[in-house]
Amino acid sequence: MTNNIVDFINLHRDRYVEELKSYLAIPSISALPQHQPDVRRCAEWTAQELERIGMQNVRLIETPGNPVVYADWLGAAGAPTMLFYGHYDVQPVDPVDQWTSPPFDATVRDGEIYARGSADDKGQIFMHLKAIEAWLKQAGSLPVNIKVFIEGEEEVGSKHLDQFVREHKDQLAADVVVISDSPMFDRGIPSICYGLRGLAYFQIDIRGTKTDLHSGSFGGAVANPAFVLGQILAQMKDKGGRVKIAGFYDDVRPLREEEREQWKRLPFNEKRYRKDLGAPKLFGERGYTTLERVWARPTFEVNGLLAGFTGEGAKTVIPATAMAKISMRLVPDQDPDKVATLFEAYVKKVAPKTVEVTLTRMHGGKPWMADFDNRYVQAAGRAIEQGFGKSPVFNREGGSIPVVSTFQEVLGVPSVLFGIGLPDENAHAPNEKLDLSNFHNGVIAAAFLYEELGKLR
Amino acid sequence: MTNNIVDFINLHRDRYVEELKSYLAIPSISALPQHQPDVRRCAEWTAQELERIGMQNVRLIETPGNPVVYADWLGAAGAPTMLFYGHYDVQPVDPVDQWTSPPFDATVRDGEIYARGSADDKGQIFMHLKAIEAWLKQAGSLPVNIKVFIEGEEEVGSKHLDQFVREHKDQLAADVVVISDSPMFDRGIPSICYGLRGLAYFQIDIRGTKTDLHSGSFGGAVANPAFVLGQILAQMKDKGGRVKIAGFYDDVRPLREEEREQWKRLPFNEKRYRKDLGAPKLFGERGYTTLERVWARPTFEVNGLLAGFTGEGAKTVIPATAMAKISMRLVPDQDPDKVATLFEAYVKKVAPKTVEVTLTRMHGGKPWMADFDNRYVQAAGRAIEQGFGKSPVFNREGGSIPVVSTFQEVLGVPSVLFGIGLPDENAHAPNEKLDLSNFHNGVIAAAFLYEELGKLR
Repeated sequence: MTNNIVDFINLHRDRYVEELKSYLAIPSISALPQHQPDVRRCAEWTAQELERIGMQNVRLIETPGNPVVYADWLGAAGAPTMLFYGHYDVQPVDPVDQWTSPPFDATVRDGEIYARGSADDKGQIFMHLKAIEAWLKQAGSLPVNIKVFIEGEEEVGSKHLDQFVREHKDQLAADVVVISDSPMFDRGIPSICYGLRGLAYFQIDIRGTKTDLHSGSFGGAVANPAFVLGQILAQMKDKGGRVKIAGFYDDVRPLREEEREQWKRLPFNEKRYRKDLGAPKLFGERGYTTLERVWARPTFEVNGLLAGFTGEGAKTVIPATAMAKISMRLVPDQDPDKVATLFEAYVKKVAPKTVEVTLTRMHGGKPWMADFDNRYVQAAGRAIEQGFGKSPVFNREGGSIPVVSTFQEVLGVPSVLFGIGLPDENAHAPNEKLDLSNFHNGVIAAAFLYEELGKLR
Repeated sequence: MTNNIVDFINLHRDRYVEELKSYLAIPSISALPQHQPDVRRCAEWTAQELERIGMQNVRLIETPGNPVVYADWLGAAGAPTMLFYGHYDVQPVDPVDQWTSPPFDATVRDGEIYARGSADDKGQIFMHLKAIEAWLKQAGSLPVNIKVFIEGEEEVGSKHLDQFVREHKDQLAADVVVISDSPMFDRGIPSICYGLRGLAYFQIDIRGTKTDLHSGSFGGAVANPAFVLGQILAQMKDKGGRVKIAGFYDDVRPLREEEREQWKRLPFNEKRYRKDLGAPKLFGERGYTTLERVWARPTFEVNGLLAGFTGEGAKTVIPATAMAKISMRLVPDQDPDKVATLFEAYVKKVAPKTVEVTLTRMHGGKPWMADFDNRYVQAAGRAIEQGFGKSPVFNREGGSIPVVSTFQEVLGVPSVLFGIGLPDENAHAPNEKLDLSNFHNGVIAAAFLYEELGKLR
């Protein structure tokens, strides 16, 4: 790659941060209906930026939900085509009082930029936009054909994406998909991720009585839905952290011995990990290490609870209803629909007849695992090495990017997970942040990635 | 009693309702700091009304919390002195969207007045004020000496009351306490209540990690505090509804056989009760009837739950913290402090070391039981018969009025529970209401009560 592209990138670091701040200022929270206009505004901002950096055929494509942003540059005759996928929507920000600086007023402290969406995923999208800009401004062309495809519903389960990809199969056709929406293994340890967990997300609603009741006058005479919810949840895992849903583990692909050996060699400091999280003790499924639990084993999690009186002080009430948000993370070869059905059957079995239980399937996503000796993954490894000055490790990730399975299934192409976040960057939590040196190295690595992919003729 | 007092009462029914509406319009919610000024305004309104109806020595007495309203009329030479106790504060109104009419804009529908505080306790206080007014306006005097003592912290555990009664022991000295803050047995079945349950109320806070975590990246590696909360709660009761806290039942006074026989003869329709509550099925401690469970057996209840994401949609988060409000209703001879200590020890035993658990004692109250053949209780029975046209049944109540134990202990006097609410009047729930015919009969019964008590020289 010509030096002047790296020079250009290094010269414009400050400008990149200022531009990124504008992007992060848009509260594109897809989960909250009141932010609908912001979500659209964010799509428009993304499109304008693509236009500005020199991409072609820029457009918003409407879906039944939030618009998709599309652009391409297809002038690299004979070179492969990469499809870059990202999402411009972000998570909600509650509890907002736990943010040190306002979530949509990006603030740089100690080389990190704090804002909702900084790591997940606007910062990582922007890294690619700046790498594309550097090529187009300095070389006048890209070394690989690029299609950009940025959606606005990832944080609410990408519910219209599957259909969109099917309906735009020809427009999205490519040789490889590149996604930057995951953390690297650790600070200073860049990585290429070759496996993701899937997801099955539910809301449980329990109704005991028509209205809230005085717990003095009625306590002892009726089932308490908040207590019943506790009873139901408690039956989901045993003391050893193993999920008790009948059939839950049937399709779990066992960890290969080589994989376990390889992961044991990774520089993972369990003590520091625990301390960083502030947990009194780590806890997970008996018989597995922490990395194995997070990367290669399914789990059952409670994401939210709500019932009765939750204000300051005391209110002696038997709540009429109790609600939980729960989700299961899945690993190959579990199927989210099948697991959802097993869960429904199990809840039906364990729930008492004293209450009404309603289960709502919120969303699901398939787990994914790549063949990591394919040539695109290897090209990505070389680009990371040039951007970060060291060769990457190969790991899996505990999170879910359901679209990866869709791309495999519908477009028939592999994905490369080219993430430059860090595991402690509070994606989905207060004080989300992105390390700016990783961002700047990432822009260089992305510029090299395009060149490496362009060589694979 | 002279007919002209009953005539006066019957003549002023409409005015009573209009005046009661003004009283109910004051949102005197003691649990919510932002309603502090309303609470004080309500105390002042009560004092002005006492002044207006002709009571003497009317004053607000400051406490470290909300003021107490005091008044007396001590001109019945040779007659006993009754201390009337009530509370002018009310419960919070959430969920406010479930109210058919606004909670502080009292509305009459089908002979019932709907408003927060209508049954608990402003309506029942007002019944006495109107009976006192009728005597003073028509006879120019009361047949019994009356001290009025109305507090403003009952709904937050009467936390300064105990000390107040001790410090004002001489001022409050009386022969009998009259309290109207409980329901009658059923519509058309007036009753005198001779037993109440006690209370031990806690908040449990569980912390897993420093911040909320992405449930993909960390799910499986750390204990989930919302799940642990479910596990802890589930261990509080067995499948038969029996509380599992070690030592919990040690001091429970067994039900007497006569009492069980007597209650079996009460016109209690379990089918209608279940239907009115809208419960799929009744549920409680094995081996006891519904009335026994509510009146004479202790219980463990979850009053509130809060953790993680509770909005619309899905958020894949492991909450950093989870909170529950819980309370235990106690029966003679359980002691709230002793039970609280047993509970703390049990939680400590069952909670895993993977989380930090904080228990906060919110408030407590002793259970109470009267000797129901004492002459004050019998006098109250005669007054009820004259107001309602039928003799009352004698029952216990599942709720708690901790001050009853305080009066017994500090003033050494028995209480008479002279309640005219109904069990389905939604005290502590949306759409609280009071039956106006019970209110009007109650004013007449109270007027007779003063006469009956005055005869006990």
